[in-house]
Amino acid sequence: QEGQQLAPPVVHYHMNNLTTSSNPIANQETVLILTPLARFYQEYWDNLLKLTYPHELISLGFILPKGKEGNAATAALQEQVQKTQKGPLKKRFASITILRQDTESPLSSQDEHERHKLENQKIRRAAMSKARNSLLFTTMGPTTSWVLWLDSDITETPPSLVQDLASHNKPIIVPNCYQRYFNKDNNKWETRPYDYNSWQDSPTAQQLAKDKLGPDDILMEGYAELPTYRSLMAYMVDDPQSNPDVGKEVLLDGVGGTALMVKAEVHRDGAMFPPFAFYHLIETEGFAKMAKRLDWQSYGLPNYFVYHYNE
Amino acid sequence: QEGQQLAPPVVHYHMNNLTTSSNPIANQETVLILTPLARFYQEYWDNLLKLTYPHELISLGFILPKGKEGNAATAALQEQVQKTQKGPLKKRFASITILRQDTESPLSSQDEHERHKLENQKIRRAAMSKARNSLLFTTMGPTTSWVLWLDSDITETPPSLVQDLASHNKPIIVPNCYQRYFNKDNNKWETRPYDYNSWQDSPTAQQLAKDKLGPDDILMEGYAELPTYRSLMAYMVDDPQSNPDVGKEVLLDGVGGTALMVKAEVHRDGAMFPPFAFYHLIETEGFAKMAKRLDWQSYGLPNYFVYHYNE
Ligand SMILES: Nc1nc2c(ncn2[C@@H]2O[C@H](COP(=O)(O)OP(=O)(O)O)[C@@H](O)[C@H]2O)c(=O)[nH]1
Ligand SMILES: Nc1nc2c(ncn2[C@@H]2O[C@H](COP(=O)(O)OP(=O)(O)O)[C@@H](O)[C@H]2O)c(=O)[nH]1
Ligand SMILES: [Mn+2]
Ligand SMILES: [Mn+2]
Repeated sequence: QEGQQLAPPVVHYHMNNLTTSSNPIANQETVLILTPLARFYQEYWDNLLKLTYPHELISLGFILPKGKEGNAATAALQEQVQKTQKGPLKKRFASITILRQDTESPLSSQDEHERHKLENQKIRRAAMSKARNSLLFTTMGPTTSWVLWLDSDITETPPSLVQDLASHNKPIIVPNCYQRYFNKDNNKWETRPYDYNSWQDSPTAQQLAKDKLGPDDILMEGYAELPTYRSLMAYMVDDPQSNPDVGKEVLLDGVGGTALMVKAEVHRDGAMFPPFAFYHLIETEGFAKMAKRLDWQSYGLPNYFVYHYNE
Repeated sequence: QEGQQLAPPVVHYHMNNLTTSSNPIANQETVLILTPLARFYQEYWDNLLKLTYPHELISLGFILPKGKEGNAATAALQEQVQKTQKGPLKKRFASITILRQDTESPLSSQDEHERHKLENQKIRRAAMSKARNSLLFTTMGPTTSWVLWLDSDITETPPSLVQDLASHNKPIIVPNCYQRYFNKDNNKWETRPYDYNSWQDSPTAQQLAKDKLGPDDILMEGYAELPTYRSLMAYMVDDPQSNPDVGKEVLLDGVGGTALMVKAEVHRDGAMFPPFAFYHLIETEGFAKMAKRLDWQSYGLPNYFVYHYNE
């Protein structure tokens, strides 16, 4: 009688059969797209649906905060998820995991101005780090080849984003994250840098860390109070008139998380998002440093753009 | 037509519905037992089968090295796994994952004497850290409440190990790991300390770290060349004649991994096994320090024993 009940699953995986290559479609590589989500934007979902990487090779993972804002975002996300997963087969994703944190957002306001205040950043980014780690530790599986971190307010990317980033075959690679805005001076739609977390280190920043910072202090980019003299990928863009090379790669010491492609092996080695000061860095920038300590180099694509929602 | 195919899985988890409590059976809490395994011991498996925590709430995860030794261990493990999972329902585990590393053991010899040489320890423990992280990141799921790390050469524990450790309701807790041996002087079977990685820090160790160690140096326990003056849990055992309290708890700054019970939330926050020098610590000891940075305290049970195989 007992023998008739199916034996529980036993699965056996050879990690060296799991490729993470420049030709992920040919090798049927599984991509896990992970999004911490405090607000739902329809444009984000529409952009996700347009990705041309085979959806049956994509799993999605979301983590949302507790509380009123989190509830609203969850409801909006669930509605789109249901619609997609019951819709045309080609658009459906392999699996979708939605996690709800047991903590609320640390800031009462998600307003862009409030969010970006220096004293709020350490608390915010420590909380973001824990949310990212929870999502990562909970959703990565034995068949995951790539992890693509994609913020919920990235509303425009090339449809070939996954293939484009994978084609470089780098352990860690980030596009340049810009923002579209309406320039009232010349009545034109233009673009401007948004994410300043992708950078190359400077001797000044190194020295500052040695001389001025306490063990738990964090050095963050984009604050006049604390100039770092790092080289920001935001400013490494070639002149659009000069037929720039969209495939141009630069070495990075810090990376942003708005769109961040990582070989699963990098995370499996233990590279995560430090919620504490790690070499005076935190979250995605701390991740790049931790990966470096594990001998994984980060790269950036200054001429390849994704766009952040404009509040 | 398309509508007839079942929609792919969408799962929604509230992390605050996931309890990790002192009464895990009543709350139906899932335990993930994780074992890095270079050699298979039948006594380990027999001991695992005797655990009285409901097996349907236990998932097992193994990671084995590549190469000849790994192949032999895998074959032996697979055989026992098949036998158990097809056997009596009550003994079957909920699920079992077996991962094979794409790297071999860093040391050519797994001999106890070779393993414990100081110059070999840093390389070994960095490799062990990566193996542990791979296993953890790959097997933790949204319903995991507890992670119990159990080395493959722990051949004897109380059958109530899981309940006993959980009953303390601590973020991180370790029993004392001893070894049985035959004392030729008095012709008696006796026990002696085996694992020296569970300890309380000392001002001397702190000072040593400040004065003498380079940024990538590691301070390890149990080497005469490098006395640390830490207080080792191995030596905190109360006199067996004095009716000692097996539930006695001590605070720890470093923990060993032979048997190590961790609330899943600690790992989800990002606490992993650093494969690099983290505050001059590595692997399980570095894990305790990293957890501490995340405000999770480690505890030890000096009078509660598990036993390591005697080669
Ligand atoms: N789960 C979770 N996600 C959050 C929280 N706060 C922000 N996010 C998400 O994390 C990402 C980065 O946050 P955002 O506020 O856009 O940062 P900024 O653009 O760098 O100022 C976005 O995808 C947000 O939706 C939070 O408390 N919990
Ligand atoms: N996956 C994997 N497991 C290993 C490797 N080396 C040792 N182990 C396992 O890791 C645990 C600790 O190793 P062990 O040699 O017993 O360490 P010691 O008792 O502290 O000297 C045991 O469960 C071993 O079977 C390895 O290279 N890969
Ligand atoms: Mn944003
Ligand atoms: Mn051992």
